Amino acid sequence: MTSSTHPAWDGLILGASLATLDAPQGYGEIRDGVLAWKDDRLTFVGSRADLPGTPQKLAREVIEAHGWITPGLVDCHTHLVFAGDRAREFEMRLGGASYEEIARAGGGILSTVRATRAADEGELLRQSLPRAHALIADGVTTLEIKSGYGLDFDNERKMLRVARRLEQLGISVRTTYLAAHALPPEFAGRSDEYIDAAIEWLPRLHVEGLVDAVDAFCEGIGFSPAQTRRMFEAARALGLPVKLHADQLSDLGGAALAAAFDGLSADHVEYTSEDSARAMAEHGTVAVLLPGAFHVLRETRLPPLDAFRQHGVPMALATDCNPGTSPLQSLRQAMQLACTHFRLTPEEALRGATVHAARALGLEDRGVLRVGARADFVQWHIGHPAELCYWLGGRLAHAVHAGGHRVV
Amino acid sequence: MTSSTHPAWDGLILGASLATLDAPQGYGEIRDGVLAWKDDRLTFVGSRADLPGTPQKLAREVIEAHGWITPGLVDCHTHLVFAGDRAREFEMRLGGASYEEIARAGGGILSTVRATRAADEGELLRQSLPRAHALIADGVTTLEIKSGYGLDFDNERKMLRVARRLEQLGISVRTTYLAAHALPPEFAGRSDEYIDAAIEWLPRLHVEGLVDAVDAFCEGIGFSPAQTRRMFEAARALGLPVKLHADQLSDLGGAALAAAFDGLSADHVEYTSEDSARAMAEHGTVAVLLPGAFHVLRETRLPPLDAFRQHGVPMALATDCNPGTSPLQSLRQAMQLACTHFRLTPEEALRGATVHAARALGLEDRGVLRVGARADFVQWHIGHPAELCYWLGGRLAHAVHAGGHRVV
Ligand SMILES: [Zn+2]
Ligand SMILES: [Zn+2]
Repeated sequence: MTSSTHPAWDGLILGASLATLDAPQGYGEIRDGVLAWKDDRLTFVGSRADLPGTPQKLAREVIEAHGWITPGLVDCHTHLVFAGDRAREFEMRLGGASYEEIARAGGGILSTVRATRAADEGELLRQSLPRAHALIADGVTTLEIKSGYGLDFDNERKMLRVARRLEQLGISVRTTYLAAHALPPEFAGRSDEYIDAAIEWLPRLHVEGLVDAVDAFCEGIGFSPAQTRRMFEAARALGLPVKLHADQLSDLGGAALAAAFDGLSADHVEYTSEDSARAMAEHGTVAVLLPGAFHVLRETRLPPLDAFRQHGVPMALATDCNPGTSPLQSLRQAMQLACTHFRLTPEEALRGATVHAARALGLEDRGVLRVGARADFVQWHIGHPAELCYWLGGRLAHAVHAGGHRVV
Repeated sequence: MTSSTHPAWDGLILGASLATLDAPQGYGEIRDGVLAWKDDRLTFVGSRADLPGTPQKLAREVIEAHGWITPGLVDCHTHLVFAGDRAREFEMRLGGASYEEIARAGGGILSTVRATRAADEGELLRQSLPRAHALIADGVTTLEIKSGYGLDFDNERKMLRVARRLEQLGISVRTTYLAAHALPPEFAGRSDEYIDAAIEWLPRLHVEGLVDAVDAFCEGIGFSPAQTRRMFEAARALGLPVKLHADQLSDLGGAALAAAFDGLSADHVEYTSEDSARAMAEHGTVAVLLPGAFHVLRETRLPPLDAFRQHGVPMALATDCNPGTSPLQSLRQAMQLACTHFRLTPEEALRGATVHAARALGLEDRGVLRVGARADFVQWHIGHPAELCYWLGGRLAHAVHAGGHRVV
C-alpha cells in the first residue's frame, strides 16, 4: 500500500486519543490514535504505530489533531421541526399561571400546531435550521426528527419534508411519523377517527420516502394502548419499525407494547415496570432517556435504571428538542443532565448518545469508530471523555465530520 | 445635529427591540429601538421615531439588526482562572466513589491548587481563555474573576494577573482577592496564621492594581466569621469593597457579616436567615444566586427568595464557573437553571444577570441601556427576552459589543 502512487484513503486524522466505544465496556480508548476514511466510510481505526505506512502516502488529506475524537453524536429523539416557540408560556408558568390560564391564553401544544400549520415549508425550514445547526455544532451527525405538529396530511408531510431537507447541513436525518402526537381540534372527541385518518396518511407519506419509523404518544393525555397498537399494525404492514413515547407520566404498559412489536425504542420510560424492562431486553428495544424534559418539568420519578442495567436494556439519551417540555439545543447538555439527574456515569452517557442511540434508530453502522462504519466523528478540545458530561455550556467541539466531510 | 457634516456618533444600531432594563419593573421594552454610542458610552437609547435625524448622518457606522438587544451580561462571580479540570473526579463520584476515595486519588480543591501552582502565567492564560471566550460568546461583557487557587503570594498574584490579561478579549474584568478560599497544605492546622499571611499579601497586590474587591469562603469547611472579619478589616483599611461566599451549607451569619461591612454582595446564601436578608437590604448588599453549584451538587435548600423580594434585596445571578462544583461556561445556562430550580421569572433572571450583577460589582454604569452607560450590548436571535432563560444550549447571541466595539 505504501508503494502506491495514489493514496488509497481520502483523509486521515492523527494526534488525538480515540474513544472508539467499540467494546462492551469502557471508552475503547486508543492513545495516539489514527482514523482514516474513504468516501463516507472509516478505513482505519488504530494507533499510529499500527499504521501501514506514512500518513501522507496513505491519504490525500492529513489532519493534525489533539484532544479526543469520539464517534459523531446521534440525537435519536427530537421534535426539532416546528414554528414559533413557547417562551411566553414558560414565562407565564414561572409567573404562577395555571395550566388553564395558559391554555386560555393560547398556549400548550396546540399553539405549536397552529404556528407550524401557518408556516410554509420555506419558513418552517428557516426556523428549524438554527436549532439543527446548534446541535451539529455540539457534535451531532445523525439526527432523528419527528412529525406531530401538523396533525393533518399536508402539514405532517410538510414537517417531514423539512426534516429531510435538513440533510443539506451534511448530516444524516432519520424521520419518524408521529401523527399520533396530539389530537387536532378538528377531531376533538373523535380520537379513534383521528387514528383512522393518521393510518390512512401513513402509506401516502411512506411512498414519498418520508418515513423511516412510526411513533405515538401513548399516555392518558395522549393515545390509548389500543390506538397505539392500531398505528403499530399499520407500520408493520408497511415493514416500518416502531418506537414509542411510553410510560412518561403513568404506566400504561407502553414500553412492553413497543417491545411486543419489536420496537426500536421506548422513550421517556419513567414509569416503566421491571416486567416491561424484561420484555424490552428480550426484543432488543432500547430505552431512550430524555433528561431535558425531566429537568424542565422538574420530575422526580426516575426511570428504572437498575432494571435496565440488570436486564441488559441498552440506554440511549436524546435531547427531545421541542418547544414545550425540552427546549434543548445540545445533546451534550442532555448528557450533563443525565449524569446529574439520573446519576448515569459519563461512560453510560456517551454510549447513550452514540452507539445506543444509533441502535434506537436501527442503525448499526455508526455510533462507534470501527472500520466500515460511517466516517462520522467529532474532534473535541478535552483532556478526558468525562468532560463531555461535566461542562455546562462551553465550546468543546473543535471539528465535526459527517460521512467523511467536515460539517463544522 | 443633522446639519453637521461629521456624524457625532461612532455607531448606531437599529431594527431590533430593546430590553433596556432601565425601570424598576419589566424589561423596559422599546419596540423598533435604536442605540447609538460614541467612544465607549451610549449616546442615544430610544425609538426610531425619536431619532433626531437620519441614521447615516448621525453615526459613522449604522448596523441593521433584528431580534432583541439587551445590555451586555455581567457575570459577577467566577473562578474562571484555573489549570486542569476535575472531570475525572466528577466521573469517580458518579461511579460511586466516596469523598475520601476522591481525596486519596488526589481530587478536591487542592488538586486544582496544585495544577494552578504548576502552570506558569502563559499556560494559565492559555487554559483560561476558552472559558472566557465561551462566556463572552454567550453574551458576557463584564466578568468578575476571583483568585483563590494560588494560596500563596506568587500564585495568587499570577492568577490575578491572568484575570487582568483576559481584558485582551475586549471586555471588562473585575478582580477579586480570594486568598481565604481554602487552607493551603503548608498551613495545615494553622488557619489563623494563614489569614495573617493573606492579609499581609493584600496591600502588595493592591498596589499593583490587581485587586478590585476582597472575598472569603465563610463556612464550617472554610474560614470562620472571626477570620472573615479580619480579612474584611484589612480590605476596609485599603478602601476596598468586600463580598462573601456566605451561608451556602449552613447559617454562620455570613450574609449579615458582609452587610455589616457594607459588602457589595453575599453569594450562595441558601441558608441566609430573614434577619440577614433585612440587614442586606439595609446596607445595599446584593444576593448573588449561584444555581450552577446548586444544580451540580443536587442541593435542595433554596435561598430565601421571598425574603429577598419582600425586603428589596436585589438578586443577581452568576455562573460561579469553577472546576469543582460549577463547571458552567454560560451565564444564559445559569439563567435557565435559576428559572428551573429557583422559579425565578425570566425577568428576574435577566435583571440578575445584568443590572443587579453590575451592582454586585459596585458598577453603576452598565447592566442597563441608558445614555451615559457603557456601550455594552448583545444582539440576540430571539423573539422575546424570556427565550434567554428558556433554551438550554443553542447559539442565540448574534453579536456582542463591549465598550462600543464588537467582540463576538
Ligand atoms: Zn418526544
Ligand atoms: Zn464561588
